[in-house]
Amino acid sequence: MRRHLLEAADLDLADATSVLDTAAQIESALAGREVKKLPTLRGRTVVNLFFEDSTRTRISFELAAKRLSADVINFSAKGSSVSKGESLKDTALTLEAMGADGIVVRHGSSGAPHRLATWVQGSVVNAGDGTHEHPTQALLDAYTIRKRLGRLEGVRVVITGDVLHSRVARSNVRLLHTLGAEVTLVAPPTLLPVGVGSWPVEVSYDLDAVLPTADVVMMLRVQAERMNASFFPSAREYSRRYGLDADRMAKLPDDAIVMHPGPMNRGMEIAADVADSPRSTIVEQVGNGVSVRMAVLYLLLGGNA
Amino acid sequence: MRRHLLEAADLDLADATSVLDTAAQIESALAGREVKKLPTLRGRTVVNLFFEDSTRTRISFELAAKRLSADVINFSAKGSSVSKGESLKDTALTLEAMGADGIVVRHGSSGAPHRLATWVQGSVVNAGDGTHEHPTQALLDAYTIRKRLGRLEGVRVVITGDVLHSRVARSNVRLLHTLGAEVTLVAPPTLLPVGVGSWPVEVSYDLDAVLPTADVVMMLRVQAERMNASFFPSAREYSRRYGLDADRMAKLPDDAIVMHPGPMNRGMEIAADVADSPRSTIVEQVGNGVSVRMAVLYLLLGGNA
Amino acid sequence: MRRHLLEAADLDLADATSVLDTAAQIESALAGREVKKLPTLRGRTVVNLFFEDSTRTRISFELAAKRLSADVINFSAKGSSVSKGESLKDTALTLEAMGADGIVVRHGSSGAPHRLATWVQGSVVNAGDGTHEHPTQALLDAYTIRKRLGRLEGVRVVITGDVLHSRVARSNVRLLHTLGAEVTLVAPPTLLPVGVGSWPVEVSYDLDAVLPTADVVMMLRVQAERMNASFFPSAREYSRRYGLDADRMAKLPDDAIVMHPGPMNRGMEIAADVADSPRSTIVEQVGNGVSVRMAVLYLLLGGNA
Repeated sequence: MRRHLLEAADLDLADATSVLDTAAQIESALAGREVKKLPTLRGRTVVNLFFEDSTRTRISFELAAKRLSADVINFSAKGSSVSKGESLKDTALTLEAMGADGIVVRHGSSGAPHRLATWVQGSVVNAGDGTHEHPTQALLDAYTIRKRLGRLEGVRVVITGDVLHSRVARSNVRLLHTLGAEVTLVAPPTLLPVGVGSWPVEVSYDLDAVLPTADVVMMLRVQAERMNASFFPSAREYSRRYGLDADRMAKLPDDAIVMHPGPMNRGMEIAADVADSPRSTIVEQVGNGVSVRMAVLYLLLGGNA
Repeated sequence: MRRHLLEAADLDLADATSVLDTAAQIESALAGREVKKLPTLRGRTVVNLFFEDSTRTRISFELAAKRLSADVINFSAKGSSVSKGESLKDTALTLEAMGADGIVVRHGSSGAPHRLATWVQGSVVNAGDGTHEHPTQALLDAYTIRKRLGRLEGVRVVITGDVLHSRVARSNVRLLHTLGAEVTLVAPPTLLPVGVGSWPVEVSYDLDAVLPTADVVMMLRVQAERMNASFFPSAREYSRRYGLDADRMAKLPDDAIVMHPGPMNRGMEIAADVADSPRSTIVEQVGNGVSVRMAVLYLLLGGNA
Repeated sequence: MRRHLLEAADLDLADATSVLDTAAQIESALAGREVKKLPTLRGRTVVNLFFEDSTRTRISFELAAKRLSADVINFSAKGSSVSKGESLKDTALTLEAMGADGIVVRHGSSGAPHRLATWVQGSVVNAGDGTHEHPTQALLDAYTIRKRLGRLEGVRVVITGDVLHSRVARSNVRLLHTLGAEVTLVAPPTLLPVGVGSWPVEVSYDLDAVLPTADVVMMLRVQAERMNASFFPSAREYSRRYGLDADRMAKLPDDAIVMHPGPMNRGMEIAADVADSPRSTIVEQVGNGVSVRMAVLYLLLGGNA
C-alpha cells in the first residue's frame, strides 16, 4: 500500500484486498478479547482535520485510531486560524511539525487532500473531498458486500441517486471495478456527470428495470440544499422515481441487499421500512466502517515505527 | 442495578445505596494511589451525546470515564447530521454500531433518553432531559449529604426555587424519598408543578419558616431566560423572598449545610458570602459528581466484559 | 520553578535554563523510543481552558500533555455556563474540584490567569492573556534560538511589528533579557507601548538599519482586525516598511535566522519565499513548542505525585 489513501485509484486489487482482509483479521482478533483494543499505534498521533462538519465520519476515525491506541487530536477548521486566512500549506506544516503521523482530512474542495499530501511526511487519508472521493466509504461498502454475499467478483451493484455530486459514488465505482464487481448507475440525466460515458459502468434511468438482476442496491443520500436547484427533480418526483420503498424492494432477488452510506432521509431516497428491513445493511456498514478504518490506519501507520 | 440509568425511579434503596457505597470505595481506592486511575473500563467506549450545551456535566462524565480508562467520544449534536434531520433513532443505531458501550445523553426533550434506551444494547445514562430528570445530580447530592451529615434517613431537606422547570428537583425528590429523607419544597405558587400534591413532599411558600428545622437547604438555579416570563416574580422580588443571604442562612441549625447544583447566579438565588461559607458544599458537590459518575459507569458497564 | 507559569518574569535564569534543558532531554529521550510517549503524568488531568479560539496553541498543549500520558479535557468557554454569566472564580473552583492538576488558560483579558491562580491548588499555565503575556511562546522561541545558534547570551534579537498589542513581544522581551540576549524593537511609533522606555531594549524605527547586525529577526503577526484602525499604517505602507521580503532578508548576516510565532499572513509581514527559506525557523518553532510545553508540564506537575 502507498503512503497515503487519497482516492480509490490508489488501491490496486492486491491493496484493496489487503485492507479488507486486515479489517476481517482485526475484527476476529478483537472478538476474542476482553479489552477491545490493540496496542499497534501507541505513541502515534492521528489528527482529524475537518474543514466540513461530519460528526459521523470524524467519530468513526476517532474510534478506529483510539482502538489502535493512537492519540487523537480533533481539529475543526471552523473558528481556527485557517478561517482567519492561514493557508492549507501552513496548517499542514504545523501539524507535521507537531508530530502528526497521520492526517485524516475532510475538505469542501476536491483535491485538497492531494495537495496536503505533497507537503507532509506523514500519511494523509482522504475522509471526503468536495464531490471527488471518499475512499474509506467505498472500502467499508466493499467489506460489507463481501461479508454478506461472500464475494465481490461478478457482484452486480446498482448505485442510485445524485451521482453528479456524490463522492461516495465516485469512490465506489472505481473500487468496485478494481474488485471485479459490475456497477450500474441509475439517476435522472441531470444528476449524472458529463464524463460518465468513460466510466466502467452501465447507466440506466429506470430503477425498476434493473432491480430484478441486482445483488446490491446502494441508495445515495439526497442533499437537502440541492433539492430546490433547477437541475433537481421535485422532491415528490425524485422519491417516486428513484426512492426505494417496499414495493420496489420486492423486485430484488431474494438474497440481494440494500445499502446506504448514511445519514438517511427516511421517506425521501429510502422508505423507513426498507431502511429497517433485514435486507438493509445500513447499521452494519457503520460498524464495518470502524473496522475498515482501523485496517487503513494500521496499514499506513503501523509499519514505520 | 438495571442496564440503564434513566431516572431516579430506576434506583431502589439497595441500588441507590450501592452507587453511593461504590463511589466511596472508588474515592478511597484512588486516594492511596499515585496514578489516580482504575483500569476497569479499558477498551470500553463511552459516548457523550449532548443535544444541549453543558460543559460542566460533559466534563464531569468525561473525567469519570477516563479515570476508569474508557475511551471517550464527545458528540455535540449541534452542526451534526442530527441537526440536518437525522432521527434520534438513526443516531442511536449509528453509535451502537460503532461499538458504544455506554451513551451519556443530555437532551432538551423530556423522555429522549428513554426512547434511546429502547434502541440500543449498551447502557444509557440520562445526563438531563428537558424538565424531567437528572438522576446523577441527585445521586451526587445524596452522596454529599451522607458524607457531610453521616446519614440520609430522616434528614430534612429544603429544596427552594423554580421547581416547575427543574429536573434537578424532580430527581432529588424521588431519590431522597427512596433514601428515607424528608423533603420540603419552597417556591412561589407559579413555580410549582400542578401535580405536586401527589409527590412525597411537604410544600411551603415561606422559606424563613422552614429554615430553623432544616438539615439541608438546596437552592435551585434560576434560568435567566425564564426571569421575564409572566409566571416568574420580578428578579428583585424573587431574590428577596427565595434567595439565600447571610441573614437567612443564620436561621439554619448550626450543622445544616447549603447546596446548589451550579452554575450559580451569585446575588440572585444565593448571595456570594453564602456560596463561599463553610456551610456551603457547592464545590464538594462538583468533586463528588465525578466519583458518583465513576460509580454509575462502573456498575453499568463494568460487569459485562 | 514556581507552582504556576503566568508570565516570563516567573522564570529566573536558572528556571528558564531548566525548562530549555528539560525540553532538550525529553526530545532526545523520545528520539530513541519506538513509542513516543512518557508515562510521567499518567493519572493526572490537564484542562485546556480556552476563552479565545486558538486551535494551534490548544493542540500544542494537548499533544504535550498526552505525550506525558496525562488525561486532557478541552474546555472551550464559548457556549458554556461561563458565557451564561458564571464567574471565572466559579469556573476555576469547579475545575479544581473535578481534580484538574493543571489548567492551561487562554483569555482575552490581561491578568486573568493570575486571578485564576489565586483560587486553585493546581498549576496554572498562561497560554496567552489579552495583550499581556504568552510565556510558553517565549520559551519555545528561546529554545529555537539556542538550538540553531548554540547560545542565547549576547545574541542580538530584532522583534518587528505591532509590539503594542503583542503578548508574544512582551514575553520575549522579558525572557530574552533574563537569558542574556539583547533585544531591539522595530515598529511604527504608534505601535509601541507608552512605557517602552523602561523596557530592557533598544528601539528603532528603521528595520533596514538594524538587520545587518542581527542574529535573529522575529516578525510579529499583524492582526487583520487592527489593520484598519487609525493608529495603524496602511497595509501597503506597513508591508513596505516593516515586512520582511527577500531583499531585506539579504541584509542579514549569513547565519542569522528568521522567526515568526504563526499563523503568518504571507505577503503582509513576511514574504512567502522568506517564510519558506532555509533561514526560517517557523516550522521548527512549532515542533519545539510541543517539546517546551512538555517540559513545562513535566516541571510543574511531575514532582508532586
